Amino acid sequence: MTTIETRIKQKKAEISANGNDRNSEANQAMKALVYHSPGNKSWEEKPKPQLVKPTDAIVKISKTTICGTDLHIMKGDVPTVTDGRIIGHEGVGVIEEVGSAVSNFKKSDHVIISCITSCGKCDYCKKGMYSHCTDGGWILGNLIDGTQAEYVRIPHADNSLYPIPAGSDEEALVMLSDILPTGFECGVLNGQVKPGDIIAIIGAGPVGLATLLTAQFYTPAEIIMIDVDDSRLAVAKTFGATQTINSNDGKAVEKLMKFTNEKGVDVAIEAVGIPATFELCQAIIGAGGHIANIGVHGKSVTLHLETLWSKNITITTRLVDTVTTPMLLKTVQSKKIAPKKLITHHYKLDEIIKAYETFGNAAKEKALKVILTNE
Amino acid sequence: MTTIETRIKQKKAEISANGNDRNSEANQAMKALVYHSPGNKSWEEKPKPQLVKPTDAIVKISKTTICGTDLHIMKGDVPTVTDGRIIGHEGVGVIEEVGSAVSNFKKSDHVIISCITSCGKCDYCKKGMYSHCTDGGWILGNLIDGTQAEYVRIPHADNSLYPIPAGSDEEALVMLSDILPTGFECGVLNGQVKPGDIIAIIGAGPVGLATLLTAQFYTPAEIIMIDVDDSRLAVAKTFGATQTINSNDGKAVEKLMKFTNEKGVDVAIEAVGIPATFELCQAIIGAGGHIANIGVHGKSVTLHLETLWSKNITITTRLVDTVTTPMLLKTVQSKKIAPKKLITHHYKLDEIIKAYETFGNAAKEKALKVILTNE
Amino acid sequence: MTTIETRIKQKKAEISANGNDRNSEANQAMKALVYHSPGNKSWEEKPKPQLVKPTDAIVKISKTTICGTDLHIMKGDVPTVTDGRIIGHEGVGVIEEVGSAVSNFKKSDHVIISCITSCGKCDYCKKGMYSHCTDGGWILGNLIDGTQAEYVRIPHADNSLYPIPAGSDEEALVMLSDILPTGFECGVLNGQVKPGDIIAIIGAGPVGLATLLTAQFYTPAEIIMIDVDDSRLAVAKTFGATQTINSNDGKAVEKLMKFTNEKGVDVAIEAVGIPATFELCQAIIGAGGHIANIGVHGKSVTLHLETLWSKNITITTRLVDTVTTPMLLKTVQSKKIAPKKLITHHYKLDEIIKAYETFGNAAKEKALKVILTNE
Amino acid sequence: MTTIETRIKQKKAEISANGNDRNSEANQAMKALVYHSPGNKSWEEKPKPQLVKPTDAIVKISKTTICGTDLHIMKGDVPTVTDGRIIGHEGVGVIEEVGSAVSNFKKSDHVIISCITSCGKCDYCKKGMYSHCTDGGWILGNLIDGTQAEYVRIPHADNSLYPIPAGSDEEALVMLSDILPTGFECGVLNGQVKPGDIIAIIGAGPVGLATLLTAQFYTPAEIIMIDVDDSRLAVAKTFGATQTINSNDGKAVEKLMKFTNEKGVDVAIEAVGIPATFELCQAIIGAGGHIANIGVHGKSVTLHLETLWSKNITITTRLVDTVTTPMLLKTVQSKKIAPKKLITHHYKLDEIIKAYETFGNAAKEKALKVILTNE
Repeated sequence: MTTIETRIKQKKAEISANGNDRNSEANQAMKALVYHSPGNKSWEEKPKPQLVKPTDAIVKISKTTICGTDLHIMKGDVPTVTDGRIIGHEGVGVIEEVGSAVSNFKKSDHVIISCITSCGKCDYCKKGMYSHCTDGGWILGNLIDGTQAEYVRIPHADNSLYPIPAGSDEEALVMLSDILPTGFECGVLNGQVKPGDIIAIIGAGPVGLATLLTAQFYTPAEIIMIDVDDSRLAVAKTFGATQTINSNDGKAVEKLMKFTNEKGVDVAIEAVGIPATFELCQAIIGAGGHIANIGVHGKSVTLHLETLWSKNITITTRLVDTVTTPMLLKTVQSKKIAPKKLITHHYKLDEIIKAYETFGNAAKEKALKVILTNE
Repeated sequence: MTTIETRIKQKKAEISANGNDRNSEANQAMKALVYHSPGNKSWEEKPKPQLVKPTDAIVKISKTTICGTDLHIMKGDVPTVTDGRIIGHEGVGVIEEVGSAVSNFKKSDHVIISCITSCGKCDYCKKGMYSHCTDGGWILGNLIDGTQAEYVRIPHADNSLYPIPAGSDEEALVMLSDILPTGFECGVLNGQVKPGDIIAIIGAGPVGLATLLTAQFYTPAEIIMIDVDDSRLAVAKTFGATQTINSNDGKAVEKLMKFTNEKGVDVAIEAVGIPATFELCQAIIGAGGHIANIGVHGKSVTLHLETLWSKNITITTRLVDTVTTPMLLKTVQSKKIAPKKLITHHYKLDEIIKAYETFGNAAKEKALKVILTNE
Repeated sequence: MTTIETRIKQKKAEISANGNDRNSEANQAMKALVYHSPGNKSWEEKPKPQLVKPTDAIVKISKTTICGTDLHIMKGDVPTVTDGRIIGHEGVGVIEEVGSAVSNFKKSDHVIISCITSCGKCDYCKKGMYSHCTDGGWILGNLIDGTQAEYVRIPHADNSLYPIPAGSDEEALVMLSDILPTGFECGVLNGQVKPGDIIAIIGAGPVGLATLLTAQFYTPAEIIMIDVDDSRLAVAKTFGATQTINSNDGKAVEKLMKFTNEKGVDVAIEAVGIPATFELCQAIIGAGGHIANIGVHGKSVTLHLETLWSKNITITTRLVDTVTTPMLLKTVQSKKIAPKKLITHHYKLDEIIKAYETFGNAAKEKALKVILTNE
Repeated sequence: MTTIETRIKQKKAEISANGNDRNSEANQAMKALVYHSPGNKSWEEKPKPQLVKPTDAIVKISKTTICGTDLHIMKGDVPTVTDGRIIGHEGVGVIEEVGSAVSNFKKSDHVIISCITSCGKCDYCKKGMYSHCTDGGWILGNLIDGTQAEYVRIPHADNSLYPIPAGSDEEALVMLSDILPTGFECGVLNGQVKPGDIIAIIGAGPVGLATLLTAQFYTPAEIIMIDVDDSRLAVAKTFGATQTINSNDGKAVEKLMKFTNEKGVDVAIEAVGIPATFELCQAIIGAGGHIANIGVHGKSVTLHLETLWSKNITITTRLVDTVTTPMLLKTVQSKKIAPKKLITHHYKLDEIIKAYETFGNAAKEKALKVILTNE
C-alpha cells in the first residue's frame, strides 16, 4: 500500500472513530460543494463538521475562493479526491469551536485558513517544510473535507490557522491561504530574486500574477511576463511587469535573448505546468541563473543537460509550505502589497456553481480570483 | 558567429599578434602532447611558449596529469579543440617568467595551475563564477595550449595560479588543479551536504572519489557510493564510503529506499554523465533533497516533474569555478584531506602516450589519477 | 510586572489548577534535589509530578547530569529559581505517561529531554528560535521543576523530547540535552566555521570542549584552545585541538597573532563569560571574522568599535535553541562524534550531593560532565 | 612599523619611482583641494597626475562631492592624511588615459570612481572584501591623492571604476561612489532586512538616508527613523520613512518598545558613530534581531552582554566594500531608486571652499550631498 493510500485510510478512521458524537448532533446540517465523479459536483446538504481531535478547530467560513487545482479535481485528475468529498482549501472565517489542546485560538477569533495543514512537530514541520507534514500537508479539500462549505474542520489548528488583525480587509487575506505564498515561496524565494535582477515569469494566470506581485518585494530591475493571452499581459502591466511578451509567435526566446544582450535572464519562473513552458525556461536562463518551477506538471519534461551541465544553474520544485504566511501578512498589513488586485469576481457562497463556470472560463470572463461570501 | 567561435578567433589573434617575438626565439623548443585529429595525438616538438600579454606567466611544468575530459578530446568529442592544440589543464610547476602586470608571482615561485583561467575583473569573476570568465574559463588545453608539455603560458596569472607553500608535496597538489575543486564545488557545495545527512554519490571514478573525500568536510552520517565496478567500490570503502552498492543488478533504487526507510537520500550527486545515472538520482532523492550534477552530459535526460514538482527539491549544474582552491589548499596543508590517495600510477612526462593507455583502460588497470613528472 | 514575573505566576497557576488531581495521588512520592536558598539544597521527598496539560508527558529519569548553570543557581545567582524548586534541565528517561494531545510519544518510549521547552506553535518556535518560545524556553529546573529527580513533567512533550533509537548508549545522549547543542549552535554555527578556517575557542571547560568536538564537523584547519588550566588544555588536545595556549602569562594575543601571521583568526568562540575573555576575542579576530559568544555574562563588556568598526566582523549571542538536536543525534548514531568523552564521573542519583561537590571542584577533580544514574 | 605605515611608505615609493615621467610633463598642471594641516586647506595648483603602474587610469573629474569623512580629515582626525594630500574619494569622470594592463576601459569612457580601490587578486578581493584589499581599500584622498581635483589617478582601474551607461544622469551616479553602497552594504545587507520587518535607522544624515533608500529594496513593513533634528526627520518622511522619532526628549526607547509591543525591532542600524546611539540600538533590538553598525566610531562603547548574551542577536561592523556597485547601478538604471534625492546643493568645482562651508553647516544649510561640477 502506498503512503498516500495509508494516509487516506487513516484520515477516514480518525473521523469515523468520532461517529457517535456526530450522530448525536445529526440534526445540525450545512451546505457544501461536493465532488462526486468527474464532471459531477453539487451544492448540497452535509452534516456540519465536528471536532475529531483535541488539536482541531471548527471554522465558520466567511469567504472562500476557487483554485485552479479545484478545476483539475472536478475533471477527475486528482485521484486522492473521492466521491463525497467537500472541495476547497482557501478561505477566511470565524472560529466556532476549538479542541482542548488548541491554545493559539478561541471561539470568535477571525482567522486565515492555510491551504497546508501543519502539525508543527514532525521532522518536516520542524524544518519549515509544512507541505510534507506527516500528518498534514495538502489535505483540505483533498484527503479530508474542505472550505467550499459553510463550516470546515481544521486539524492542527494552532499551526494551520493565522489570526486576522482587527480592522483587516478579509477579502485581501483570502489570497494568503494559497496563491500568494505559492507565488512567493515556489517562485520568488526559490528563484532567489535579488535587487537589480532581470526575471521572467512564464504564465500570467493568477499564480503567475501572485508571483509578479511578490517578486517586487526584492526590487528586480526588470520583470518580464510571458503568456499567450494579451488581456492577461495587459493586466500584468498594471501589476508591475516592466515588459510583456506574447509567446504565440514562437519568438519569445529570441526576444528575451535580445533584451538581455544574449546573456539570458537571472531568474525564470515557470507558472504554467506544461513541457513547452519549462522548455522556454531552459532556453532563456542565463549562466548562474535560477529556474523556479511552480506549475503542477502532469508529464515529464526534457532537461537539456547537454547544454546546461556547464551553465551553473539551479532548478527548484516546491509544493507551497505556507511558512511565509506571517511575513506576507505583515506586508499586507503595512500596505506594501495589495493582493485584492487579484480578485475579479464576487459571488455569494450558494452561487458557487455559477462561480465555477466563471472561473472555468477564465480567459473569456477575464477572471483571476473569484470571491465567494457566506452571508 | 557563436560566442565560442568568436573567442577562438580572438585567442588566435592575440597569440599571432606576438608572432614576431616568437620567431625571434624560434630556436627555443620544447616537447608537448599534441592533438591532431580523432585518435591521432603525438608527443612532439613545439615552440616554447612566450609571454603574450602583460598579465601572462610562463610556467615550467613539474607534474601534470590526465583528465577524463582529455580522453573525450582525443576521441574528437570536443569540437573547440583543433589540430595542433597542446592538451592538458592540470599541473604544478615553477614560474619561468612573468608579464609586467603580474604582481602576485615572480620567477622561481612554485605554483598550482588552475584548470580555470580567471581574469578577476569581469562580471562573472566578480561573482566568483570563474568558469564563465569572459576572457578565461576552461581555455587551457582547449582554446589555447595546455599543460601536457614542458612549458605552458598561463593568461591572467595572478588570478589563475596559486602559490605552493614551502615544503608541500607537489603530487598531492596536482589534485587541486581540477579534480578536487570539481568534486567539492559541483558535488559537495552545490549538494549542500550537512552534518548528519545521508548522501549518495553515483559513480566511483576519480571525480566521484574526489567528491567522496571532500564530502567528509561536512560530516554526513552516511555516504553511499554507487557504481557498476566492484573494485572501484572497494576503493571507495577505503576512502570513507559507509555503504557501497553495485547497481548492476538493477536494484539500486530498491536498496537505497529500504536503507532510508523509504524517505530517500538528502543529497544525490551525479558523477557519471549519462541519462541512466541522472534517472537514478531522481528515483532516490528525498523530499527537500538536492541533486547535484557533476557529470558532463552529451544527451538530454528526462526530468520527472510529474512526481518531482511537489517534492521541494533542488537540482544544480556547474562547471567548476576553482573558487575554493585556497580553501582546499588549507585543508591539504593541515592534513584534513589526503588527495594523494587518488594517484595510482606514475610516469615520466615523455612516457605520456603510455600513460594515456593506462588511463584509457582505467577499469582494467585500476587507474584513478596518473602523475606525469617532467624530470 | 515584567514578562518573566508574569510567566512565573502563570506557570504556578497552571500547576495549582490541577491540584485536586495531585491530591488524589498524594501518596505517590519521589526523591528530588531541591533548591531552598543560596547555599542550601537537599535531596528530599517531593510529590511525583502529574500531567497538567494534554500536551505534557511524565518521564522517569534514567540518567541526568549537572550543568555549570546549576552551580550558579545554588549560589543564588538566578533569581527566577525560588525556594522549593527541583533543579536540573538535562537527562534521558522513559515515558511514564502522556497527555491526550501528545502524539509523537507513548508510555515506555526512551527519550532525550531537551533543556529547552518548545511549544512548536508560537512565532519564535516557527522560526526555530525555541529558546524564546513564549510558553517554553529554558523553564526546566528554573520556572518549573526539573530533571534532578526520579520523575519530571515535560510540557509540550512532542516538541521538547526526542526519541532514542533502539540500542543507543543512553549516557552519550545525555550530552544532547544541553551541552552539545549549546557548543554547536552558539559556537560553531553562529561562528560560521568553514573548512580550512583557523578558529580559537576561549575556555576549555565542558562547553568549550563540546564546541571543540562539534567544530570538527566542518573541518577547520586549526582549532586553537585557550585556557588557564593546563590539565584542561591537555584534555583538549585529546579531543582534537591542534594548538593549545595557556593564557596565564598574558601573551595569548601575541602568540595568536604570530601564529596567524598577524591576520587574526577566522572565528573566535567565547566559552567562559567574563570581560577578559571577550576582550581576548576582540584582540585576535581577523578582518571579516566571527566572534561567537557562548558564555553567560554577568557584567557588560567593552566593545572596541574604535578599531572594529572597519573590520567587517560579526558578533553573535545565543541562548541555545536545541533546534539541531535531530542533526546531532544523527552524528552520534553514525559515530561521527563521541560525546561520551565529556563524561568523567559517575554517581547514583541519590549520591547527587556528592556529585555536586565533585563538579563544584572541577579543576581539582578534573571533572567535566558527571553522570547520575537513577537505578 | 604598523601595517598602515608600511603602506604609506610603499605608496610614496611607487609614485616617486615614476618621478622622471612626471617631470617631463611638469608643465601640465591642474587645480585641486589640498589638505595641509588641521583647519588648513586650499584650492591650489598641483601637477596633473601621471600613470604610475600599467593597471592605472587617469580620470578627468566631471563631478565630485564631499563626504562627512572629509570634514574629519580637515579637522586632523585622520592621521594617515598628511600635508599636501589632495582630498576626495567620490566622483564620476571621463577616462583620459589608461595603463597597458587595463582592459575594461579606454580613453573617453564615462566612469564611476569607487571610493574603494580593489586589486581583484588578493585574498580579500577574491572574497569580495575589497575594503581590506592588500593593495587598495580606502586609499583615495587618504594614502594617495583623491578626487576633489580636475584629474585623479585611479590604481587598479579595471576593478575600481565602473562604466556609466550611455544616457545616464551623472549626478545621480556620484552617489554610487560611496554613500549608497555604504548604506546598503553596512546597513541593509549586514542588517539582513527582510520583507515585513520592522527596522530602525539611527541617524538621518546622508548615510542614514542612503540606508533608508536602499532598505526599501527589501520591503520592510516599517522603517523608523530616529534623529535629533526635526528637519532631517521631515526629509526622511519624504524618502520613505514610515515613522520618525526625535530622540531629544530621551524617550526614544520607550516609544520604540511601545510601537513594537515590547518586542523590539528586527533590525537596528547605527548611522552616527557615538556611544549614545549604539546604546540605543542595544536597548531596542528584539530577540533574534540584527544590529548593523555603519558609524565611524572614535571611542569604545559598552556592550550589554549581561542582557544580550541570551537574546540571539547579531552585531556587524563593516567598512564599505563597494562590491554591490554593479547591483546598485542596475537599480538606478531601472529607476527603482532615485539617489538624486540626496543632492541638495550645487557648486562649480572651483567653488569648493564655499561648498565645504555649506556642507560643514549641514544642519543650518539643510545640506545633504553637495555636487561639485568641473566645467
